Amino acid sequence: MTPASFLLIDDSTHNPDMYYATRFLASDRFLYLKSQNKEILLISQMELGRARMESEISDIRTTTDYDIIGKLKRYGRDTAYNMVVSELLRDEGVTRVSVPHNFPISIADALRSHGVEIIPVPSPIAKLRSVKHSCEIDHIKKAQACCEKAMQTAIDAIRRAKVVDGVLFDSNSNSHSNSDQPLTSERVRAAIEHTLIDCGCESESTIVAGGMDASNPHNVGTGVLRVDESIVIDIFPRLSQERYYADMTRTVARGSPSQELIEMYAAVLDAQSVGLGTVRAGVSGGDVHDAVCDCFRDYGYLDMFTHSTGHGVGLNVHEDPSIGTGGEVLEAGNVITIEPGLYGKIGGIRLEDLVVVTKTGCINLTTITKRFLV
Amino acid sequence: MTPASFLLIDDSTHNPDMYYATRFLASDRFLYLKSQNKEILLISQMELGRARMESEISDIRTTTDYDIIGKLKRYGRDTAYNMVVSELLRDEGVTRVSVPHNFPISIADALRSHGVEIIPVPSPIAKLRSVKHSCEIDHIKKAQACCEKAMQTAIDAIRRAKVVDGVLFDSNSNSHSNSDQPLTSERVRAAIEHTLIDCGCESESTIVAGGMDASNPHNVGTGVLRVDESIVIDIFPRLSQERYYADMTRTVARGSPSQELIEMYAAVLDAQSVGLGTVRAGVSGGDVHDAVCDCFRDYGYLDMFTHSTGHGVGLNVHEDPSIGTGGEVLEAGNVITIEPGLYGKIGGIRLEDLVVVTKTGCINLTTITKRFLV
Repeated sequence: MTPASFLLIDDSTHNPDMYYATRFLASDRFLYLKSQNKEILLISQMELGRARMESEISDIRTTTDYDIIGKLKRYGRDTAYNMVVSELLRDEGVTRVSVPHNFPISIADALRSHGVEIIPVPSPIAKLRSVKHSCEIDHIKKAQACCEKAMQTAIDAIRRAKVVDGVLFDSNSNSHSNSDQPLTSERVRAAIEHTLIDCGCESESTIVAGGMDASNPHNVGTGVLRVDESIVIDIFPRLSQERYYADMTRTVARGSPSQELIEMYAAVLDAQSVGLGTVRAGVSGGDVHDAVCDCFRDYGYLDMFTHSTGHGVGLNVHEDPSIGTGGEVLEAGNVITIEPGLYGKIGGIRLEDLVVVTKTGCINLTTITKRFLV
Repeated sequence: MTPASFLLIDDSTHNPDMYYATRFLASDRFLYLKSQNKEILLISQMELGRARMESEISDIRTTTDYDIIGKLKRYGRDTAYNMVVSELLRDEGVTRVSVPHNFPISIADALRSHGVEIIPVPSPIAKLRSVKHSCEIDHIKKAQACCEKAMQTAIDAIRRAKVVDGVLFDSNSNSHSNSDQPLTSERVRAAIEHTLIDCGCESESTIVAGGMDASNPHNVGTGVLRVDESIVIDIFPRLSQERYYADMTRTVARGSPSQELIEMYAAVLDAQSVGLGTVRAGVSGGDVHDAVCDCFRDYGYLDMFTHSTGHGVGLNVHEDPSIGTGGEVLEAGNVITIEPGLYGKIGGIRLEDLVVVTKTGCINLTTITKRFLV
């Protein structure tokens, strides 16, 4: 029995597997088929010139080659496209094809009705993506350098802020803006994003969360920042051109945070150190997570650690391997975060470093200091 | 026979249907089930607090309620989650469920193997989304105002540029940057993005494409901008908080573009006017596109018009209705673009306005002038 072909249909701006397989960036869905070491791209006629220039695949076909316009007029949008895909597989003699777990059910049903056997599998491309080539690591290092620059901008703004009645006020002497403005999550986020743009990065959902906002790990944060509270800053930019992400979190405070917050910070720092010390090729992401959990258990904080320890980073900000329960065995060349956090009624603390897994341990790509009080 | 329940499983940062149905923004996948007017949200334990605060749905359950950790340890990641979904449907007595066309095949297969009938349908939520409420139109207007501000910044930079040997040079007297820098696509894009951030918008893949770059409708553009060539500027920001998009394109030139480019510009302006004049509730997107094609045919340019006339805009930058072959019948409250373009060996021209469909025509949300030579 010949090995099944592999079929992907999606856009490549949101699906990094598509981009990795084709190096063709498109916001509309297109098709990638790998069949007996032959690779085929199926795109719209409009994308032909760009696909020929940008993609690494030589066999490029268009939906116009398969009379998409005629089919659209006769059968409507979804049926027309499914028929084009069926015809292409028939032309290639493909009767058995593996697809990723998230492959669209309607296309799968249409192909099955034409007698094609569809086998959902864990994406082999996601697996390839999880072990980085050296040029990919270079891209991630570049993104991380931008991320650190943006983080420093944010920390500096908080460190320099004036305090009036417990509220932080912007004191950016380089800016033309009114210096009487309170320093809000939104202002710090804008400062981060301006820095990232000047580095050639895009970003969204940057977290600058103070006080109760920080007690929820995915709260992006709004409103004024205050003394005595923890402020979680989580930045995950993507290089606009190279498309690779970085990811980093620091937690800082002004004033006199409570003893409990200070103890939580110390526990997170310790747990992160334990996690980083556990990482090496051959150890599973599950084992790393368990080590971090054990550490928090010793502090009596385990119930405040509500997420996994980390994740792979590359063309996606969350990708394989998982550093959590059931996480895969690590390989040299994985790029992962180690980001323990604690979330309680008085706020949240998270510290996140980005590292490259090696045979004997890991190389930390994060150089920025970890200091709670700034 | 009772109507089928409707099931969605995806993240809501990339899937606007999920966000529209739940108003809960999460970058990890979660579940939304509508069954006999009852709505259920299934999320991870970590998201519980945020979901209770942010979502409009009251029946919120977590994968921990269904022992995800135990299942992960026993069965691995994908199987564990599919089992949780099966149990939830069983608890709700759901044996027949409709899903969107792009529903993940593996979850569908798992549910089918548990005896659940899966019916792929065009997403009823996408249909709801295509007709905007007045508060949604307000969000889009706000995004469009930011978009216009950014467009003006870009056009001003090109208009003010000094020319040396046919190349545009930055002459931004307000900036601290070196004024001897050539004005590149990248610099104009950065100026656009800085403006958008200050308006509370995110953006990606902003197009500033001159010369041959502009002859490819999806080329974002790189390198120096020159006199005599067309420069296509396509900006589609999203309000970070409200999550609604705007979309706009203008084409400008400095110097003395060729007669052919000037004629192409005039044809696109005419075709856009024809398209805008055709829009009203009851007319199909296909009819509007045909009218634009007829106009280009009269000019002898039809083969240079390589994409559809437009698309809906809302929580996604491309959504229903389609203003192209097979496009749906328009309804009052649709928000759509009309963006004819021509792409030839000497460059490209595109003009894009954003309009609200009404019973008798449309309201144009785009106020910025259309002038080729600046």
